[in-house]
Amino acid sequence: METRNEKDLIGTLEVPAEAYYGVHTARAHENFRVTDTSISQFPELIEALACVKEAAALANADLDVVDPRLSSAIVAACQEIRGGALHEQFILDPIQGGAGTSTNMNANEVIANRALEILGLERGDYRALSPLEHVNRGQSTNDVYPTALRIATVLAARQLLAAMDTLRLSFERKAEEFAGVVKMGRTQLQDAVPMTLGQEFSTYAVMVDEDQHRLQDATGLLHEINLGATAIGTGITAAPGYAERACAHLRKITGMPLQTAPNLVEATQDCGSFVQFSGVLKRIAVKLSKVCNDLRLLSSGPRAGLSEINLPPRQAGSSIMPGKVNPVIPELVNQVAFEVVGNDLTVTMAAEAGQLQLNAFEPVIGYSVLKSCRRLAAAAITLAELCIDGITANAGFLRSQVENSIGTVTVLNPIIGYEAATVVAKEALLTGRTITSLVLEKGLISPDELEALLSPASLATPPRAVGQNVVTGVS
Amino acid sequence: METRNEKDLIGTLEVPAEAYYGVHTARAHENFRVTDTSISQFPELIEALACVKEAAALANADLDVVDPRLSSAIVAACQEIRGGALHEQFILDPIQGGAGTSTNMNANEVIANRALEILGLERGDYRALSPLEHVNRGQSTNDVYPTALRIATVLAARQLLAAMDTLRLSFERKAEEFAGVVKMGRTQLQDAVPMTLGQEFSTYAVMVDEDQHRLQDATGLLHEINLGATAIGTGITAAPGYAERACAHLRKITGMPLQTAPNLVEATQDCGSFVQFSGVLKRIAVKLSKVCNDLRLLSSGPRAGLSEINLPPRQAGSSIMPGKVNPVIPELVNQVAFEVVGNDLTVTMAAEAGQLQLNAFEPVIGYSVLKSCRRLAAAAITLAELCIDGITANAGFLRSQVENSIGTVTVLNPIIGYEAATVVAKEALLTGRTITSLVLEKGLISPDELEALLSPASLATPPRAVGQNVVTGVS
Amino acid sequence: METRNEKDLIGTLEVPAEAYYGVHTARAHENFRVTDTSISQFPELIEALACVKEAAALANADLDVVDPRLSSAIVAACQEIRGGALHEQFILDPIQGGAGTSTNMNANEVIANRALEILGLERGDYRALSPLEHVNRGQSTNDVYPTALRIATVLAARQLLAAMDTLRLSFERKAEEFAGVVKMGRTQLQDAVPMTLGQEFSTYAVMVDEDQHRLQDATGLLHEINLGATAIGTGITAAPGYAERACAHLRKITGMPLQTAPNLVEATQDCGSFVQFSGVLKRIAVKLSKVCNDLRLLSSGPRAGLSEINLPPRQAGSSIMPGKVNPVIPELVNQVAFEVVGNDLTVTMAAEAGQLQLNAFEPVIGYSVLKSCRRLAAAAITLAELCIDGITANAGFLRSQVENSIGTVTVLNPIIGYEAATVVAKEALLTGRTITSLVLEKGLISPDELEALLSPASLATPPRAVGQNVVTGVS
Amino acid sequence: METRNEKDLIGTLEVPAEAYYGVHTARAHENFRVTDTSISQFPELIEALACVKEAAALANADLDVVDPRLSSAIVAACQEIRGGALHEQFILDPIQGGAGTSTNMNANEVIANRALEILGLERGDYRALSPLEHVNRGQSTNDVYPTALRIATVLAARQLLAAMDTLRLSFERKAEEFAGVVKMGRTQLQDAVPMTLGQEFSTYAVMVDEDQHRLQDATGLLHEINLGATAIGTGITAAPGYAERACAHLRKITGMPLQTAPNLVEATQDCGSFVQFSGVLKRIAVKLSKVCNDLRLLSSGPRAGLSEINLPPRQAGSSIMPGKVNPVIPELVNQVAFEVVGNDLTVTMAAEAGQLQLNAFEPVIGYSVLKSCRRLAAAAITLAELCIDGITANAGFLRSQVENSIGTVTVLNPIIGYEAATVVAKEALLTGRTITSLVLEKGLISPDELEALLSPASLATPPRAVGQNVVTGVS
Repeated sequence: METRNEKDLIGTLEVPAEAYYGVHTARAHENFRVTDTSISQFPELIEALACVKEAAALANADLDVVDPRLSSAIVAACQEIRGGALHEQFILDPIQGGAGTSTNMNANEVIANRALEILGLERGDYRALSPLEHVNRGQSTNDVYPTALRIATVLAARQLLAAMDTLRLSFERKAEEFAGVVKMGRTQLQDAVPMTLGQEFSTYAVMVDEDQHRLQDATGLLHEINLGATAIGTGITAAPGYAERACAHLRKITGMPLQTAPNLVEATQDCGSFVQFSGVLKRIAVKLSKVCNDLRLLSSGPRAGLSEINLPPRQAGSSIMPGKVNPVIPELVNQVAFEVVGNDLTVTMAAEAGQLQLNAFEPVIGYSVLKSCRRLAAAAITLAELCIDGITANAGFLRSQVENSIGTVTVLNPIIGYEAATVVAKEALLTGRTITSLVLEKGLISPDELEALLSPASLATPPRAVGQNVVTGVS
Repeated sequence: METRNEKDLIGTLEVPAEAYYGVHTARAHENFRVTDTSISQFPELIEALACVKEAAALANADLDVVDPRLSSAIVAACQEIRGGALHEQFILDPIQGGAGTSTNMNANEVIANRALEILGLERGDYRALSPLEHVNRGQSTNDVYPTALRIATVLAARQLLAAMDTLRLSFERKAEEFAGVVKMGRTQLQDAVPMTLGQEFSTYAVMVDEDQHRLQDATGLLHEINLGATAIGTGITAAPGYAERACAHLRKITGMPLQTAPNLVEATQDCGSFVQFSGVLKRIAVKLSKVCNDLRLLSSGPRAGLSEINLPPRQAGSSIMPGKVNPVIPELVNQVAFEVVGNDLTVTMAAEAGQLQLNAFEPVIGYSVLKSCRRLAAAAITLAELCIDGITANAGFLRSQVENSIGTVTVLNPIIGYEAATVVAKEALLTGRTITSLVLEKGLISPDELEALLSPASLATPPRAVGQNVVTGVS
Repeated sequence: METRNEKDLIGTLEVPAEAYYGVHTARAHENFRVTDTSISQFPELIEALACVKEAAALANADLDVVDPRLSSAIVAACQEIRGGALHEQFILDPIQGGAGTSTNMNANEVIANRALEILGLERGDYRALSPLEHVNRGQSTNDVYPTALRIATVLAARQLLAAMDTLRLSFERKAEEFAGVVKMGRTQLQDAVPMTLGQEFSTYAVMVDEDQHRLQDATGLLHEINLGATAIGTGITAAPGYAERACAHLRKITGMPLQTAPNLVEATQDCGSFVQFSGVLKRIAVKLSKVCNDLRLLSSGPRAGLSEINLPPRQAGSSIMPGKVNPVIPELVNQVAFEVVGNDLTVTMAAEAGQLQLNAFEPVIGYSVLKSCRRLAAAAITLAELCIDGITANAGFLRSQVENSIGTVTVLNPIIGYEAATVVAKEALLTGRTITSLVLEKGLISPDELEALLSPASLATPPRAVGQNVVTGVS
Repeated sequence: METRNEKDLIGTLEVPAEAYYGVHTARAHENFRVTDTSISQFPELIEALACVKEAAALANADLDVVDPRLSSAIVAACQEIRGGALHEQFILDPIQGGAGTSTNMNANEVIANRALEILGLERGDYRALSPLEHVNRGQSTNDVYPTALRIATVLAARQLLAAMDTLRLSFERKAEEFAGVVKMGRTQLQDAVPMTLGQEFSTYAVMVDEDQHRLQDATGLLHEINLGATAIGTGITAAPGYAERACAHLRKITGMPLQTAPNLVEATQDCGSFVQFSGVLKRIAVKLSKVCNDLRLLSSGPRAGLSEINLPPRQAGSSIMPGKVNPVIPELVNQVAFEVVGNDLTVTMAAEAGQLQLNAFEPVIGYSVLKSCRRLAAAAITLAELCIDGITANAGFLRSQVENSIGTVTVLNPIIGYEAATVVAKEALLTGRTITSLVLEKGLISPDELEALLSPASLATPPRAVGQNVVTGVS
């Protein structure tokens, strides 16, 4: 393998001649080897880094601190990377010491070397264009990396939001399809009062919808960036006006409503918006898990379960029990949810452990958050397409359960009173008889009145209950 | 002890004659005995229950489903409880099975018996005024309890917000006091570049401020209630128009901008807003813990530590080491933070475990959230009053550290370049000399230029760094 | 209120004349006010402190470093406290800064003042007998407090083990009672193959049994103590031979097989055994929660659920749905489990945050662990006595489900093959027919063979399955 | 691409002609796509599956239920896989629904097709040798998968134990190297009393040693397997004697002391040993994180920190601050620790969510546990080789701190009393003078006595403190 020599604080090192990365990346590659993956597997992060570097180059050109020929080459290199090029040169482990310095240097080196090529020079000829003096000019890892991580997270959140759209629409379609299917509602797993299966699915749609709103709120907080803060927020080495210009360029490049934080010292050490964002991912996970728990319950059976709905069979369920079909997709989603809750704890601990002017643990925060976004997006789409869309209802069985239920006695409360209703309910349970036959026999109500009250449909949607099919929500 | 007989589904039970609670409460008291505390220790919950019951009574009176004489007595009883009366009658353990049914029944019974007294009747004379037929009319635990829990949580959040105000103001005062104290900033615990101690404390003020905004956001979500949903959200047994009227009365009684959820089936089973709220409490805890970690670091010493600041001594620090003073208040706050993070996990698991039309585990959710609010409020006030307000700085020592620091070389980057600066830094470290003497000796810069650049004050607040003392923030 | 003056590092303070505690306790009482409880509510901790102080006094007497008249009075005071006296004098909040110094001082002061009384002297006359010079002689909070916490935790674990005995025996009795009740087993909530209800309950008994073994293992680790380590493990101020003698006395006083840690510097900063112990409490919680999830599932209904078993009704289940009975006891236990998992996280974070020669956060570790033990013990007993003991089975219904099940086809695998069995299973599902009728019709097997194979009892306990009713386990 | 047709419960599917996996794997591959990885990246799991399948084939041959020619081919295929062949055919996502059925089927299919080749037959010719009838004979996913996961975890644990050996030895070497370096010990980050740097590092060695013992204990629990349980523990479809023989073969193949669980119904649904194992991984993580926190603190500086030790520079520390070197390796390890704690929560939630006769979430449990083992092993080796081995001490600076310290006054307690010592300490702090000069001036002690007491070496290892350099431990 051909190599070229590069130098840093530690000494001289040979790097592969064809590599766009350089000595800083190569050393970090030796130091950090725990996950078997690399940051190149998070293209949103590579893209975000290129956006930040491009904005910085433009700002430095505006302020005349970098030669326009050099900054043009830097900008061109960044644009290529944003277009998908050279991602494989981002070889570092996403979990790394150094608060992201190595990721920043990986970007500086790849961009510098590509820019050198664009200028017709040799890779490694850093006197002409240096990763540190030119690409990283006026910057520090401590403002570049958090800024890039925020942009990457916004990009990942967008994909998650789109996946949640898919899932919400699936639930909404089923809510409509099952609007006329009357069934027993349950509280604490005990038979309660009637409702429709459509209401059940519209509930899930609303949950997703509310979570989308919360995710958008949390994403909004990520738009506050600290570019221009440099090392600790005091802006040391950045030219006057740099922060404002860099942010303006970055806004244009990304199309995101980014804002420079009002207090850059605070912004440089703060991980609050990631904690908040991760907390919302946890919320989404908890809700998805709850929905999948329900789906698995409702489809339990086929004969010794609740047997309300049928999930589409996706694969043979058992290597030993012929004909068995399992709720494999909801089970997948449950597990993703458990992982996301675990990731949130990782983020929590990493955020708590930050000290003084910087949180050194942003790499694992970024890694966890990006991973959770991606997992949840995959889970949401899988759930929608491979499960929800194919669900069918056992409508006849559900109706018969309502007709045989004891919970319908509840509707008689306002007429015969809670105490008398309790007596009827207990008798129905002991004798196996229906509420209807008992209250008629006891003359507690006239047959006409009863029929009006106990029609399954009116039970599920009593007169007052305006809005319970509405597929929106706030909290 | 004198007793009276009461009856329920299970049979007859003797309750103390002087008790305002009744048979349902008495049975639950036997069933749930794990925490050694009672809901009476959460006055915000008792108050909230009384608000809800008053609103329901007024709505039922409006709709003519409860005799106005009875509803007036109910309202009067609720108002007494809101005024602080009868709280000791709320004897149940906050962690209870039954999704809060027992707490709801405790309220129904206490209110009914007090209302009976107001009407000149005997406690226990439920034919005249019944806990179930009258006080609980048109209601279910499943709408009353979550609604009351939301109101209670808003009340608890207000106290926490007030405590955070106290803390933020303490930090702001110190930020101002220490505005002129120059010191070394650190990243990854390594000496970085200069800043002021005022910037350090203004950072803490901004953190609290941002957390307050996030807490207000999360509190807003709790204003969506499901009163009128009754058992599962279909509004069964509630009179037409009840939900709207009850909500309107409750808005007036509480002064909170409460809103009936658009989809009551969803709202009845959803714990998303509690997960979100608890997630924000976790965020607050994480930040407070980070700040306290910093305070303990900065005050480490007195001779073999960082020795930047002095915490006010609150007590003798050691039973063996004479004269030792420990950072007991920050340590207290760290521990509260760890507890709050644990409580958030409890909330997360309880929310995930909810099934079908109801989350049976709201009691532990409510308990955890109210406990966390109270702990954080106490911690914030303790931290402000017993620690922050008495902090002093070792200004002379801090200035000398800046003067001897190697990190000041950073400011020379744009002038002599990163590579030459690295050489100077290494030499300073090896020889123990100052950056100043080295760059002058090497003729890298003129003495005048150097003095301008390296004055500690200008290092801490470089020309461009507009805004870094600002005590606000967004993310 | 009459007062007496006491002095410490900070200055002079008035304490109530009748108080046994002194100035150090009084200051700490002002500093730490977050939980609304006090260490007196953890009598095992007060008892453990008295044991340690008694052992130290005896060792100091052995070594002639404390006047035997004084040490006798100290021993007498400790014995009174171990007998239950003066617990109300332990007024401090269990969550406190200072690594337990205040709790240690509370013990030193109460013991000193009671010993003074025993000697016929006045409370506060510390020149005669001092909390620091005599009661705390040769000790530091940093060895006394962790040692006492370990002993207290062992005491709490014993109570938990006893409660688990109660629960295990309840499960075992039900396993026997239901040994002949055949039912469908389920995997992934789908009908699988037959088993007995006795097997289901014996499983729960085994789970409890295994957890008891793990708890005993973890408790064993707590027997390693650091008494004699004093401040950081070097034994500074302790007389030669003190550690050995104090440990020997403490072994005798407690009856526990305590051992001095081989490396006292390590033992003084290490919280590993608490992390391990708390991890086992988490395991117990997870298992209990799983069992309660099952119980709630199996008792779901009465008509639209699994309806396999009936939990004893403990209270009316609903304020709106007459006759409804809820699984309130399992729900209680689930919530306790969620709290214990949360407490384990608190312990984890507190342990991780320990720095250098001491973990300053042992108070919240001890508080969390003792609380979890107590909660789990209460939950186990409540579950056994108010739920498990009263469970009945719907044996006829369960048998009919087995007869109608499709899962029985599994037994035919070795005879007709997985593929043919799959065809039969699908046909049974589509047509609603039984496996029996289909295989006979198809002539896949003779009626006699079939009867032998498909008898529910033989399905539940196939010939080879030696041991599956055994109520023991290892892992 | 050439394909062959395969059939299952769902219908017919084309699989690549050259694939060793079949229709079940192919369907699962469509269903589960969340992690971007595959089980082939966990060679210990593939190896363990092959071990189990080989043992089952041998047992089936012993019992004459599978033709010996077929079982020999199966055994041969398994041995090839154990030798590293065909791993790339294990294409499934480690997180999957179906409780591991797909992983089991992946193994069944790959083994069947390779066995067919060995027999000179075509891949896909399942009438001759079937994945289900022959490879999976007498087995269910529900016993095969947990058994394989246990074996895989034991293999992973062995690698972790070896890595911990490396780390422990590094700490021990440094403990010896630094045995004579006297320094100030700290409690609560405040100067306490002297010790040696060797004691500090021997503490870390002991911590690792104790954790290794706990890991071995937890690994022991994994040796209890449920092979022979088949679907739910009743052993349905397994030939009499199968469980015993399969376990015996598996013991021989793996060399592990495996045991069939006494209660197979319990063992089939139980995840307790994984919860325990993961809890120990969490403990290891917490301890490693604590050690790294200490290392970062002790190496803080170079001029405004504790500056006790120097970590070997591994890379340039900053893209902006020339000459800065950061503690990147400890920071890496901290982040791994946070991830492992998160993984433990994932395991906890997955274990809790198991229902009835099976835990459907074992895939994410296995994934999390294997991932944590691998991460911790990589972190331990990285820490040892890239950090600990290169640490140097600033011995002169440390000695001067001891000489100037106030904490040395502690040693005077037994001679001049706590109260007088407190006065001296306060005076030293206020005046900046040393303890030595003050006590001599006050005549509190003779110069000779003082010299003996205050020699740094005797302070660090007082006469009584036998054993504190011992590198063993129990708890």
